[in-house]
Amino acid sequence: MSKYNYKLKKLPKRATKPRDGGMTMVMDKGLSVRQAEDFLELAAENTDLIKLGFGTSIVTPRLEEKIKLYQDAGIPVYFGGTLFEAFVARDCLDDYLRLMDKYNLTHVEVSDGSIEIGQDVKHSFIEKLSRNYTVLSEVGSKDADKIIPPYKWIQMMKGDLAAGAWKVIAEARESGTVGIFRKSGEVRSGLVEEILTQIPQNNIIWEAPNKSQQVWFISLYGANVSLGNISPWEVIPLETLRIGLRGDSFNFFL
Amino acid sequence: MSKYNYKLKKLPKRATKPRDGGMTMVMDKGLSVRQAEDFLELAAENTDLIKLGFGTSIVTPRLEEKIKLYQDAGIPVYFGGTLFEAFVARDCLDDYLRLMDKYNLTHVEVSDGSIEIGQDVKHSFIEKLSRNYTVLSEVGSKDADKIIPPYKWIQMMKGDLAAGAWKVIAEARESGTVGIFRKSGEVRSGLVEEILTQIPQNNIIWEAPNKSQQVWFISLYGANVSLGNISPWEVIPLETLRIGLRGDSFNFFL
Amino acid sequence: MSKYNYKLKKLPKRATKPRDGGMTMVMDKGLSVRQAEDFLELAAENTDLIKLGFGTSIVTPRLEEKIKLYQDAGIPVYFGGTLFEAFVARDCLDDYLRLMDKYNLTHVEVSDGSIEIGQDVKHSFIEKLSRNYTVLSEVGSKDADKIIPPYKWIQMMKGDLAAGAWKVIAEARESGTVGIFRKSGEVRSGLVEEILTQIPQNNIIWEAPNKSQQVWFISLYGANVSLGNISPWEVIPLETLRIGLRGDSFNFFL
Repeated sequence: MSKYNYKLKKLPKRATKPRDGGMTMVMDKGLSVRQAEDFLELAAENTDLIKLGFGTSIVTPRLEEKIKLYQDAGIPVYFGGTLFEAFVARDCLDDYLRLMDKYNLTHVEVSDGSIEIGQDVKHSFIEKLSRNYTVLSEVGSKDADKIIPPYKWIQMMKGDLAAGAWKVIAEARESGTVGIFRKSGEVRSGLVEEILTQIPQNNIIWEAPNKSQQVWFISLYGANVSLGNISPWEVIPLETLRIGLRGDSFNFFL
Repeated sequence: MSKYNYKLKKLPKRATKPRDGGMTMVMDKGLSVRQAEDFLELAAENTDLIKLGFGTSIVTPRLEEKIKLYQDAGIPVYFGGTLFEAFVARDCLDDYLRLMDKYNLTHVEVSDGSIEIGQDVKHSFIEKLSRNYTVLSEVGSKDADKIIPPYKWIQMMKGDLAAGAWKVIAEARESGTVGIFRKSGEVRSGLVEEILTQIPQNNIIWEAPNKSQQVWFISLYGANVSLGNISPWEVIPLETLRIGLRGDSFNFFL
Repeated sequence: MSKYNYKLKKLPKRATKPRDGGMTMVMDKGLSVRQAEDFLELAAENTDLIKLGFGTSIVTPRLEEKIKLYQDAGIPVYFGGTLFEAFVARDCLDDYLRLMDKYNLTHVEVSDGSIEIGQDVKHSFIEKLSRNYTVLSEVGSKDADKIIPPYKWIQMMKGDLAAGAWKVIAEARESGTVGIFRKSGEVRSGLVEEILTQIPQNNIIWEAPNKSQQVWFISLYGANVSLGNISPWEVIPLETLRIGLRGDSFNFFL
């Protein structure tokens, strides 16, 4: 809280870094080095993780420099799960690890949003990778027509955590229209509530790229819910939502 | 007009700064200092007011530097009305004034979009603040389900202006889906027309963040209608709309 | 391909510059000079053409500097067709040519999205301009209610190419909701397929500003389909779509 420009009373207490809950995971889908600097100026204190979205790491110039910039600011960086899957689909996991090491990445996302692998295979990936890296495991399909029932979400999340995942990420894509959301972007609220009867909140990062989704999570689970797939330029607005300084959440904490 | 790259004939005459009508109010919801410089390079000449959206001023780093940059470019800066309301709701108006003075702000927004205060109380705020500051008064609720009838809008606007407000701002939020707009973003055109039978156009800034809304206002009220909640990167596109150099307004002035 | 950060197998082969197909045309609707530098850092290699959207060239400061920056990066720049039409509607084509020459532009868009001119007049413009410039000819109305039947699209495209156009551009606007798209943004797929029975793919640049539209074109016509009206900050994401490194196109090339 020390860095707020003004200490207003009756603001909810925000967890400070390093946070276990209330994390903000940002998706960088192609910032230049200078844009990355601008983003860090604004949001380094309120950003806990940076995902280089899907396969952008393959085609982004000056990647090494940008990753180092993020890491020097104390924020772990990882490749989007789609890139992991692209290597797995080509049977090149060792190459993937070499690529991660080339950029000194400490975190890795294990996902099966685009490929079909059994839960056993996914768990063995998590077990293997968690020996040397911090593993984020994504749960939920990128296919809007694939509706996974709540008991299955819970089973998958429990399995991934037991296999060694540090956090599970509830899939929503950059658009916020699959997984825990309906095609319209509306939250599958019953699903989220049922998951939280079984999985501790701090173990989950909810992908919630749209404001109405962020508002929903904050209204129910408070300022310190962990949210992901946040646009770099939406971290400041999200921070105001979290502490009730935006119209949508104004009355949550008064 | 002198700064146009080419003097094309049959363009509508744009008011020049300082403008009484045809103002563009920009909402900065979290620019870095360098982004603010980029914005000023592009749009200083066509921006009349900068609002630091909702409570972003509390959590934005290097705020003092950014505000000074805007002020040095001759553009007045003010805090979003939600921040005013957050202080009022905590009974800390004096702290709010101290915060404004710390940043040398000359303009202040008085609003009741999130809190319920009587019109009398609102007027007394406007009267008090207008002694030392230029007051913008926002009219209209942030609640999409609260439909205010036209006669009431007119009554509120007249009251605020009589109490000392320099301009009234017609509420729409950053999304453009409340107040003078339907949930769909469509303009409540009958409402706007009725308001303008009673309130001089130059006394009103219409929040109109979406292009179709801007087009509607320009089609009816011309190049020099005052519009607000414009994104920093949409000032140049808006300027082309205003003078008929975009498809949507191409035929308005020919 | 040499500039990829990693050579992954089974990626589709992307055409390299100068490309005849697989072009990416970017719409700059008002970048600052520094933003233009950032864009070039990220996307110069994957950008083939830059359009200064609609009439923004008239109101953008430091235009000469920005255009030179683009040209020095080897990317041709042209004014949006709406500006061409604004000069034609005012009977000032010679002034338009002088303006183009002032900025050393080599490419020009001939369009009739906002004005009504006969096909003969359009062809005579193309013939005249193609003597000294590379002509892009836009086909399709900006009016969402004007539905042009497929045979007419084909006739117009053939006529423009015969008159000397280098490429024809299929209209969609910045919003992607007219011309080859329905108001909803959905592709008029039968139309596109019928056009391609008669016009070689490399002669057409499809305006496709939205991701779902880009996905549709890549799914049917491959990595090297030419797409336009791409936002500067979406070139990297588009490039991942083209080569199957994003969820939406993950399975296209495996």
